[in-house]
This record gives sequence, C-alpha cells and structure tokens, in this order.
Amino acid sequence: MAFPVTILTLYPEMFPGPLGASIAGRGLREGLWSLDTVQIRDFATDRHRSVDHTPAGGGAGMVMRADVVAAAIDSVPPGRPVLAMTPRGATLTQARVRALASGPGVTILCGRFEGIDQRVFEARDIEEVSIGDYILSGGEMAALTLLDACIRLLPGVMGAASSGDDESFETGLLEYPHYTRPVTWEGRTIPQVLRSGDHARIDAWRKQQAEIDTRLRRPDLWERHEGARVQPPSGARQKNGNE
Amino acid sequence: MAFPVTILTLYPEMFPGPLGASIAGRGLREGLWSLDTVQIRDFATDRHRSVDHTPAGGGAGMVMRADVVAAAIDSVPPGRPVLAMTPRGATLTQARVRALASGPGVTILCGRFEGIDQRVFEARDIEEVSIGDYILSGGEMAALTLLDACIRLLPGVMGAASSGDDESFETGLLEYPHYTRPVTWEGRTIPQVLRSGDHARIDAWRKQQAEIDTRLRRPDLWERHEGARVQPPSGARQKNGNE
Repeated sequence: MAFPVTILTLYPEMFPGPLGASIAGRGLREGLWSLDTVQIRDFATDRHRSVDHTPAGGGAGMVMRADVVAAAIDSVPPGRPVLAMTPRGATLTQARVRALASGPGVTILCGRFEGIDQRVFEARDIEEVSIGDYILSGGEMAALTLLDACIRLLPGVMGAASSGDDESFETGLLEYPHYTRPVTWEGRTIPQVLRSGDHARIDAWRKQQAEIDTRLRRPDLWERHEGARVQPPSGARQKNGNE
Repeated sequence: MAFPVTILTLYPEMFPGPLGASIAGRGLREGLWSLDTVQIRDFATDRHRSVDHTPAGGGAGMVMRADVVAAAIDSVPPGRPVLAMTPRGATLTQARVRALASGPGVTILCGRFEGIDQRVFEARDIEEVSIGDYILSGGEMAALTLLDACIRLLPGVMGAASSGDDESFETGLLEYPHYTRPVTWEGRTIPQVLRSGDHARIDAWRKQQAEIDTRLRRPDLWERHEGARVQPPSGARQKNGNE
C-alpha cells in the first residue's frame, strides 16, 4: 500500500522536485508512496485571495492567517499525523523519521513569510517540527528533507542489501569511515585491518572508529550515548522529547 | 556580484529544483547567485564509468571512489570553501550559514550510497557538514537545504523589510509566536498586549514569550543560551565547533 503524502503550500510547483529523481522518484512511479499538493491560496476568502497580513503588534514581514491555513488543513482527510515545518518545532531525529515512515502517511504544512498565526497550532492537532537550527526561506525545503528521510525507509524503496541499520544515528553514534578500491590512492592506503578478511577484527575496528569519531566530532551525541548506557535501560530514552 | 555555487553530484537534474522557485529562483534569474553542476560520473576512468565499489572490509551498499571524487573536486576553480554533506559532519548552525553567505561562494560535494572513501576528506580541504541527525538518500537534499538558508541572506534576495535579525536562532532563542488578523478566530483572540500599541510592552512580551518557549520546547538551546550569558563574553562561544 502506498504511503500517502499531502503537502499544504503556496508553492506546489516545488513538489516532488528532487524527490522525483533517484530512489524516491522510482518509488513514486512504482506507487510505494503518493503525493498530493494543496494550494493554501485556494482557501483565501477575500477577493484579493490574500493568505497573510501584517503581524499583530508590528514588526517586519507578514504572517499567514489562521482562518485560511486552518481551512486548508481541514480539507485534508484525517487519520494521518499533521506536521508543520517551523524552526520553533521539535528537532527532527532519526527515531521520529522511523516512526513516521512506519505510520499511515503524513500531511505537511509549509509556512512562508514570518510564520503562521499561532492560534492554528493551538486549535488543530499539529506537530511542529524543525529539521535544524537554521532559517530557511519557507517550510517547503524542510518538508522535502523530512520526506526524503522517510521515503528511503519505506518497504521496497531501498534495495534489501542496504537496510540502514548500521548508519549514523541508528546506534546513537556516527557511522564508521568508509573505504573502497583502489587500495592505494595518492600514497594513502586502506587500513590494513579492512583487508585482513577477519570479520571479528573488522567489526571491532569499525565500532572503535565510530566511537572515536563521535567523541571527537560530536561530543553532544557522545554524551547522550554514554548517558543512555549508564541509566536504567527501561524507558530511559523516551523522556527526551517526542521520540 | 553573484554568489557562485558549484554542486558535485550524480544527480545534476535535482538542481536548482525547489531553488528555482520563490525568492531563491528570482535571485537566480536576477544574477544574485549562480549555479553550476558537475556530474561526478564524468570523472570515472573505466569503460563502465563506475564511480563506486564495494566497501573495503565488507558490508552492505557501495562506497564512492576517492580517485573519481577527487578528480571532480579538482576540476572546480579554487578559492571557495568546499563542503561535503554527510551525517558525519559538523552540525549546521545559523552562524555557519551567515558566514558562508558572506563569503566568496561555495562548492558542495553530494555523496550517495553508503558514503565517500574517507581518504578524500584527508587529502583535500573539505568541510564535512550535516544538516541534522537523520539519514537522507544522498547529499543533494542537504545541499539544497544549506543553499536555501544561505541564499535568502544574500544582498537583494529578501526584501529590506525582513532582515531576519529577530528570527529563531539569531538571538540564541526560538522566535516569539506570531499573530495576525482576524482579531478573533474560532473564539481565540490575539493577545491583548499586541493590540495595545505600546511598543515597549510589546517588545517585553515578545522577549518573554521567546524565553518561555525556548525553555519549554528546546531545553538544550536554553541551556546554551544561559551558559553563554554567565561565561565571560569574549570568545566564549567560539569554543564550540566551527562557528
């Protein structure tokens, strides 16, 4: 069964965009996921079809109207999580991506301008999600990124060979470094252990490299990983947010 | 002068993609930034034009070859930062986005499959960047996201009215909530203070809301914000990574 995706946006022409190529594009053509876009402007009620107005209290930019956005949301059949891409949301994690990909599909609201009237989030059951601590021109690129992460996990999209279980964040660590032929390139040689054929040694080396790289490159991840190991295992990780 | 962007990818058809629409698209047509794509496969040397091979030491998937990727990088004129989008990289921040946007342009290497041979990163001056702790099907969507964040900051791309100085992360806090007309919607009214016309009170309320929301929604950001306030100001924030 297809994983249904509905995007609420002022720029439907941005979709599927890059998701029309590579494995996501093949998955779309093969019906592994489906895409609908809803033009928010179609729910404007005045003759200028306006979707936004100046911020209450003053300030730069424009704010998307609660009435127009809510009407667009209400036009989508219920039964799926409704996400809004916003820098004020919970930071996206691989655990949340996995949960979404194994769910009934997703509806995504893409904001523009300065943001969306806060009352929409209070009046509708909307999960505010951020893909990172930087500002985009709108929610569309964030929605494409979230979808890319979800779609590759849908059954049939990736080859069976590449389950992704080893990858960065799946174990709470960065992934180990990769090498391939040629064995020697610009005087640099693939680490001897990887050419030993000794799979136990290779596994141990990769685990050690993942730990070293995580500690050096991402002390924040390493701290969480070590914290999770010394705490009682049952439910200890569920306390941090909505995973 | 245009901000030059070169993308090294196996999927040049993904660019400009969503960056061809809205303010980034207008900026591209107006020459505020420019885009070149380099097909990495053009630098393959065998008759099968192969860019990847099985991982040294075994395991799922394929790894991009150091020799092919390095030849593609070496084909781009020097003088700009070279970024590689990878989950093993430093986490992107708004400070890094601002620095890139005020620099001479950017060259971005997009990996696919299991990753790129580690020796490329050791042999070339490459900044490994991650847009978040989740796994994408390749570096292309991450590159589009990073570019979207940079391009909106280029002179002339956003209207002068919207400088972005107030936005989430610029102050180390989430942005305050927004409201616009109608004043009452579904029984919910815009907070009284925002309709008072008293700009000092409005500013104080917004600051307080930003602090409350950051503390509740993003205790990690709040902790960093408070930490930065009690430490000696000079250089204290430069210690955490490459900002």
